[in-house]
Amino acid sequence: MLLVEMKEEVILLDFWASPYGMRVKIALEEKGIEYKRLGENLQDKSPLLLQLNPIHKTIPVLVHEGKPVCESLIIVSYIDEVWHDKSPLLPSDPYQKSQALFWADYIEKKVYDVGRRVLWEKGEKQEMTKKELIQGLKELEGELGTKRYFGGENIDFVDVALVPFTCWFYSIERRGNFSIETECPKLMSWVKRCISERESVAKTLQDPLKIYDYYNELDPQ
Amino acid sequence: MLLVEMKEEVILLDFWASPYGMRVKIALEEKGIEYKRLGENLQDKSPLLLQLNPIHKTIPVLVHEGKPVCESLIIVSYIDEVWHDKSPLLPSDPYQKSQALFWADYIEKKVYDVGRRVLWEKGEKQEMTKKELIQGLKELEGELGTKRYFGGENIDFVDVALVPFTCWFYSIERRGNFSIETECPKLMSWVKRCISERESVAKTLQDPLKIYDYYNELDPQ
Repeated sequence: MLLVEMKEEVILLDFWASPYGMRVKIALEEKGIEYKRLGENLQDKSPLLLQLNPIHKTIPVLVHEGKPVCESLIIVSYIDEVWHDKSPLLPSDPYQKSQALFWADYIEKKVYDVGRRVLWEKGEKQEMTKKELIQGLKELEGELGTKRYFGGENIDFVDVALVPFTCWFYSIERRGNFSIETECPKLMSWVKRCISERESVAKTLQDPLKIYDYYNELDPQ
Repeated sequence: MLLVEMKEEVILLDFWASPYGMRVKIALEEKGIEYKRLGENLQDKSPLLLQLNPIHKTIPVLVHEGKPVCESLIIVSYIDEVWHDKSPLLPSDPYQKSQALFWADYIEKKVYDVGRRVLWEKGEKQEMTKKELIQGLKELEGELGTKRYFGGENIDFVDVALVPFTCWFYSIERRGNFSIETECPKLMSWVKRCISERESVAKTLQDPLKIYDYYNELDPQ
């Protein structure tokens, strides 16, 4: 596909099980933006993906007005700025915005990066990483407090950053032999709330069992 | 110091050799903002730092209107938004902004994180990390191209993100036994341009030899 053919469309290159791609889908759904999805095979990436993201060669990539935007949190910020009228995700107040960016960055480092390590580590190393993940999730429970969403009454940037990773929790629990719900019940209530109240989340999050099957094929125990 | 005493001031908690802290100082200088600097001892962090950044317990922390903002790139974005009239750092166009954020994120991962590993790794592992660092810097040379600054004619967010780390290059070169100038001459011309043309950079960057002495004390060979 030539870039010139993409000028009129919003296109998302992603991979069905990627929580990074799911962040972008939830943002697009929240904003009511029509888009075309191009699923990638991560073992055999398309020439289009390599052309659009030559530096990292990763999904997701959003193409808007023929130009690519890469890195999921940067894409969500971009979507929020371009389509700013509906369902704002980042607060407009600079201080509130800095706090949302702080927690999204925290989620990237202490949940996504740490959680992925629980999947493939073994033994004592895995035990330490599990503790680090639980501590990270407990900090997030503290930040959520008694609010409905991280954004307060409405879903915001922090919710969009975190919720996709929760469909990987089942795989992490099985590989790590522990229960996140036992450790962080309030956070799991928030996950259920996101799914039951936000269609954008319900239609985007993938079946945790399907993700576990996929991961087992990728990395058999 | 009580937070209530800080209401009228802009305060920066940092550490003299930290390139993360230097990012914030350059942004404050570019904007002409008066601020009070509180130097931290990273081996014995102040109760104030622990109170202001309880999650990461790291510098830099900016206190503005009595409220703390943490994480250097988030602080620079915050400064740019609050004091938006003078010396804009992030482009206002959403696409251009997404590209600046992309490169700042790249610098974080491929220069700061990788460069620090060259300092303490040894042998074959260090050789591979050196190659990764050089490749990252060459990508940045490509992005700079024939522009004066990453921001074009003026210093911008990407310049502010990268330039502080260059006063650590001497330590990295000594520990890694290689020359960054030989590998990336155009990037080093850009460093010299930043120092000679921008007072904000010249007065912020620390002496590379002093940094090397500091690092040798911290981690003797």
